[in-house]
Amino acid sequence: MTNPGQPAYGDSMETEPETMTAKWIAIDWGTTNRRAYAMTADGRVVDTFRDDRGILSVPPGGFPAALATLRERLGALPALAAGTVGAAQGWQNIPYVAAPASLADLAAALVPIEGEPIAIVPGVSFMADGRCDVMRGEEVQALGAVAAGLVPGDAVLCQPGTHNKWVELEQGRIARFTTAMTGEMFALLKSHSLLRDMLKGEAADDAAFREGVADAGDGRDLLSALFGVRASVLLGKRAAADGASYASGLLIGADIAARRAPSQPVHILADARLTALYQSAIALLGGQSHAIDSHAAFTAGMAQIRELAR
Amino acid sequence: MTNPGQPAYGDSMETEPETMTAKWIAIDWGTTNRRAYAMTADGRVVDTFRDDRGILSVPPGGFPAALATLRERLGALPALAAGTVGAAQGWQNIPYVAAPASLADLAAALVPIEGEPIAIVPGVSFMADGRCDVMRGEEVQALGAVAAGLVPGDAVLCQPGTHNKWVELEQGRIARFTTAMTGEMFALLKSHSLLRDMLKGEAADDAAFREGVADAGDGRDLLSALFGVRASVLLGKRAAADGASYASGLLIGADIAARRAPSQPVHILADARLTALYQSAIALLGGQSHAIDSHAAFTAGMAQIRELAR
Repeated sequence: MTNPGQPAYGDSMETEPETMTAKWIAIDWGTTNRRAYAMTADGRVVDTFRDDRGILSVPPGGFPAALATLRERLGALPALAAGTVGAAQGWQNIPYVAAPASLADLAAALVPIEGEPIAIVPGVSFMADGRCDVMRGEEVQALGAVAAGLVPGDAVLCQPGTHNKWVELEQGRIARFTTAMTGEMFALLKSHSLLRDMLKGEAADDAAFREGVADAGDGRDLLSALFGVRASVLLGKRAAADGASYASGLLIGADIAARRAPSQPVHILADARLTALYQSAIALLGGQSHAIDSHAAFTAGMAQIRELAR
Repeated sequence: MTNPGQPAYGDSMETEPETMTAKWIAIDWGTTNRRAYAMTADGRVVDTFRDDRGILSVPPGGFPAALATLRERLGALPALAAGTVGAAQGWQNIPYVAAPASLADLAAALVPIEGEPIAIVPGVSFMADGRCDVMRGEEVQALGAVAAGLVPGDAVLCQPGTHNKWVELEQGRIARFTTAMTGEMFALLKSHSLLRDMLKGEAADDAAFREGVADAGDGRDLLSALFGVRASVLLGKRAAADGASYASGLLIGADIAARRAPSQPVHILADARLTALYQSAIALLGGQSHAIDSHAAFTAGMAQIRELAR
């Protein structure tokens, strides 16, 4: 991972011994994984690591110990966490902040865990237009991207993953957002569906992927288009090895086509592989996109929340 | 089950001892279940039963024994089977007949299993409009519904189940069809997704179901609308007990909205529960529907195929 505030190998740390001392820990604590950053007082990253101690792996009552292992590694520092650690299945159920929401709104609603050196950032809820939505963790990335100067205060963000968050920022606040279960749907189909024999490969930005994006962009409905993966392989019209790319293209294409007008550039915060797939699909559907460093956005957001909460 | 050709309790069978003698067995042999009918020479049902010896439960080389148990029960008669028993994972992979397809086309392409008292009806394939589709078993129901006089020769049929088949009949032939994995998608979400805690109830034709149908009919995309089930429960806007009905409404509504113009009446061949849900959803979306006895359609189709193949 790269981060503007993180020292590269060879950087001289002796020239600024004070400023590069870690003072706190920022944690992106999700459902299956967590990533922790040892942070300087002014928001630079000194050290980081990722492990699989997501909330689903923590036994009841096990969160203090799970935090302790992290502090043994990064230092006995106060911690600030965001993500599903604040959900009902996490350490403590932290109430959502309703959109529109700013970093100041999140900072004002931080919840310290009693007797533990950690506070948890609330998630954001949305209720309007006859629908409901929720996020936990992505709000820090989205607002942090603005704080870090990586995206403008009025922008459309796309945060692909298990649940893709499409965020509309207005004046540096989360005005509206929509969650699409694109990643989870692909995982369900790949692991458990009658299509699974045709989805064994890894999805890549290849000809089959682009065909799937185009079919979804033409308005083909998912329920029938997905079955078409099976039919086309059975009839010898598609190699089974291309099934994963085509199905991924269908899902990502449907996700993009449902969400945005091509006139708005999309700022994508994701890992390199998903960013490449979404950038390719957005371009195919006539749009523009920018790849944003999601780690830099997260740590900038957490640093700002910490400042605002002091 | 009810069937026009089947004697009700109290019918006097002594008055027609010859005509009510079973001469052959019709089998609807699917992936998880099979249903067999002891049939008279003129296509009436003398006896029937259903068990869970679908093809997935039959071990390699086990089909002769699986047929034998069925003949022990219904008589040592010649059998005619349709369904996934003719798929690659079934008894023998029987080539598809390409649409447009009639009962005569199916009869001409019957495949007897060597050394066994059974022949298997081929499935139907469709390739046009840049897409592929396949069916195995539903073709007998669809064409049999016409043979039995239950639907006109030009009609739209809907066969909900794990994979819903929408069939366009023209002049008594299967002209085109589209498969939607509506039922499988619901099962995947209910068993394996992060929504599963909200999908524990049984879907019913209630207010939540109708709300889901309406939301899908308004064009709300499935990837985000399905996540909305979770968000609305977390935010206290929907009872978790209503999640299954709402999600079922979304899926069935999306399936119907993608497939048909409200001007065409839809003939539904399914069990009573699914028929009721599809009829309600079609009415909500401005269409008309008729419930068709799928067992009567199947046995009429098989009887006609047997006649045509003699």
